[in-house]
Amino acid sequence: MKIITPHYIMLRDRVVANLSVAFDKQIQKIAPFEELIEEFPDAEVTTLREHSLLMPGLINAHVHIEFSKNKTELSYGDFLNWLYSVIENRADLINDCDKECMSKAIERMLEGGITTFGAISSHAMDLEACAKAKQNVVFFNELIGSQANMADALFSDFTARLDASKTIKREGFYPAVAIHSPYSVHPILVKKAVEIAKNENLKLTAHFMESIAEREWLDEDKGDFKEFFDKMLSQDKSVTSAEEFLEYFEGTDTLLTHVTNANEEEIRTIAKNNLTVIHCPISNRLLGNPTLNIKELNKNNIRWVVATDGLSSNYDLDLFEEMKISLFMHSDAPLQKFAQALINGVTIDAAEALGLNTGVIEAGKNADMIVVDLESEPTPELAVHLILHRYNISKVYINGKLEKGEA
Amino acid sequence: MKIITPHYIMLRDRVVANLSVAFDKQIQKIAPFEELIEEFPDAEVTTLREHSLLMPGLINAHVHIEFSKNKTELSYGDFLNWLYSVIENRADLINDCDKECMSKAIERMLEGGITTFGAISSHAMDLEACAKAKQNVVFFNELIGSQANMADALFSDFTARLDASKTIKREGFYPAVAIHSPYSVHPILVKKAVEIAKNENLKLTAHFMESIAEREWLDEDKGDFKEFFDKMLSQDKSVTSAEEFLEYFEGTDTLLTHVTNANEEEIRTIAKNNLTVIHCPISNRLLGNPTLNIKELNKNNIRWVVATDGLSSNYDLDLFEEMKISLFMHSDAPLQKFAQALINGVTIDAAEALGLNTGVIEAGKNADMIVVDLESEPTPELAVHLILHRYNISKVYINGKLEKGEA
Repeated sequence: MKIITPHYIMLRDRVVANLSVAFDKQIQKIAPFEELIEEFPDAEVTTLREHSLLMPGLINAHVHIEFSKNKTELSYGDFLNWLYSVIENRADLINDCDKECMSKAIERMLEGGITTFGAISSHAMDLEACAKAKQNVVFFNELIGSQANMADALFSDFTARLDASKTIKREGFYPAVAIHSPYSVHPILVKKAVEIAKNENLKLTAHFMESIAEREWLDEDKGDFKEFFDKMLSQDKSVTSAEEFLEYFEGTDTLLTHVTNANEEEIRTIAKNNLTVIHCPISNRLLGNPTLNIKELNKNNIRWVVATDGLSSNYDLDLFEEMKISLFMHSDAPLQKFAQALINGVTIDAAEALGLNTGVIEAGKNADMIVVDLESEPTPELAVHLILHRYNISKVYINGKLEKGEA
Repeated sequence: MKIITPHYIMLRDRVVANLSVAFDKQIQKIAPFEELIEEFPDAEVTTLREHSLLMPGLINAHVHIEFSKNKTELSYGDFLNWLYSVIENRADLINDCDKECMSKAIERMLEGGITTFGAISSHAMDLEACAKAKQNVVFFNELIGSQANMADALFSDFTARLDASKTIKREGFYPAVAIHSPYSVHPILVKKAVEIAKNENLKLTAHFMESIAEREWLDEDKGDFKEFFDKMLSQDKSVTSAEEFLEYFEGTDTLLTHVTNANEEEIRTIAKNNLTVIHCPISNRLLGNPTLNIKELNKNNIRWVVATDGLSSNYDLDLFEEMKISLFMHSDAPLQKFAQALINGVTIDAAEALGLNTGVIEAGKNADMIVVDLESEPTPELAVHLILHRYNISKVYINGKLEKGEA
């Protein structure tokens, strides 16, 4: 057992002072230190400095570890140009991102207080790095392929990767399923993969309505994707409609990434099916996509969480940076309230969306916790200042184990 | 004479490689190294590392040095609440910000590549720190006071400060005039101050149309400012209209800060009079003000520049951060083009707006230059990457003198 005494603790709905936390792999009890040490006299005790804040570890629900090599290689500003640049540079980027490159990205997330991440794995090149990561990992094996004649081959590649990820037996590693997108996965494959996820109770995610090109292609078989599919795959029609695609996820608790071009009907379907939306503001802006309409999501009581996407469309994998950018992009949202929603979107809401027993400092939850070195007493505007000032993160605990900082 | 050989040089309209720059206080010549060393055989030679980029020093046209103490003291999210919190904390913030605090803020700007700044000085508490700063400083003595019966006293305080700033005789220090705003300065005072600025050829600046409260107060003597003026100054009417205020600046090349609530007519007046708009995106968002309509400014060929405002409404004084936030806030602007406009807005456009012979690497310009350590060869998307990656700034030259980095 360990007892930690920070100056302040961020609980579910308030910040408290003068309390300590007793934990092993899970948080056991939150109470005054005297009470805890009496109950756990052999506990290892850590007392933190003035103005230290213990808060839940951050959860990055959507990141592409395999693309961590990109810095200036890919073209930004227009989705299709970016996609062409990904295809052109794909082999180089993937091959140049060896285990060290991927581990560096994972380590960078740890430094930034990320204790859980959802890795979208295209090729399973990141399986080993994710297996060895200190963080909790939801390992989303991604299925892609819009051509019926390739369906069997692509599906067996997908199941082979999924099976490989199931052989990883370690605490906090969860094999899962990603469907690339409505435009890039044939309905036959979508159905089969969703079936597997349902039967095996695996977490599901999909990109959905990221670009205007996707909207136009799915709705009317036209737009920027027309030339792309013609050139790349000799395909002249989309394999599905957006609404049809969404229907496959009924009865699942899928996380949909981007959703920046969803129409009203789709928003209603997402709400009805209790799906979660993953908000990647930096990626959306850099690829020339619209900004997520969070006001509309809130109106429909749709849960949304915040993620970095990969370094293929970001300059960092830092959720504090991501929240800050979102805070400024949604400049008409009420500042304090929106800042708190962002914090929730990388902690408790993300944990609930991923079905993980974490994301909040509370007895019974996994002890995924970070220590943030504030510089003064928290004000009622703490959420804003946490996002703006990128305070030093001096300790990171994952499942009760100190993974960053000194004991 | 010095000769510097970076890997790349950012010129007015392109990036070049394999050239060197000969300079003393001013840039003398840009040419291949062999040519320069033949012409200036006694020059002190500096050869920089691979992927180093020489670019113009940055210009921060609007900053309140006296308010550098704030970190979490002021209330964010709503302009009037912020203003009340400024008034409540004013004495503490100003008194606690001693010379060291102000010098630290100035030093922080130097670290961030800022070689020129426009200091809005409310109380001349920052005069000494600005006089001693390594940067070029346009020292804007600010005039404030809406009550006619206080006009003489306030004006003589203002002229005393202005006169004190004129006693500073050092290269790169420019005494100047700031009019606080249309709602806070009586027209009699505005006229007198503008007259002085015109006669003495001093640079002029003013806050203009920052908040919705300002709009409503100036237009209709109502809104959030009604209670404020009633309570604070027993004043029930605004002292001027926005249009009347703007007219006083005809024939000047004033810089107007914020302009986030200007109407079409005012935009036309600003365009007609060739005034410059100062864009402070972080400040605007944090104080609950709208985002500057840059599309409208561009349509009207109004020059706009980028500035940090003070630490009273920012978490840093870093123009790279400010540009990045603007790039994301204006998320529907074309990425590459807008990034280049932002770079211009902290270099050449800001220099022109302030009437300074700097802001571009060109023979005859003051040698205000910074060295940015890129990590690879610049792509055509350099402007975006400069803004996103916050590369290390290894050297800062001001008027030819190395003020940061090793010789």
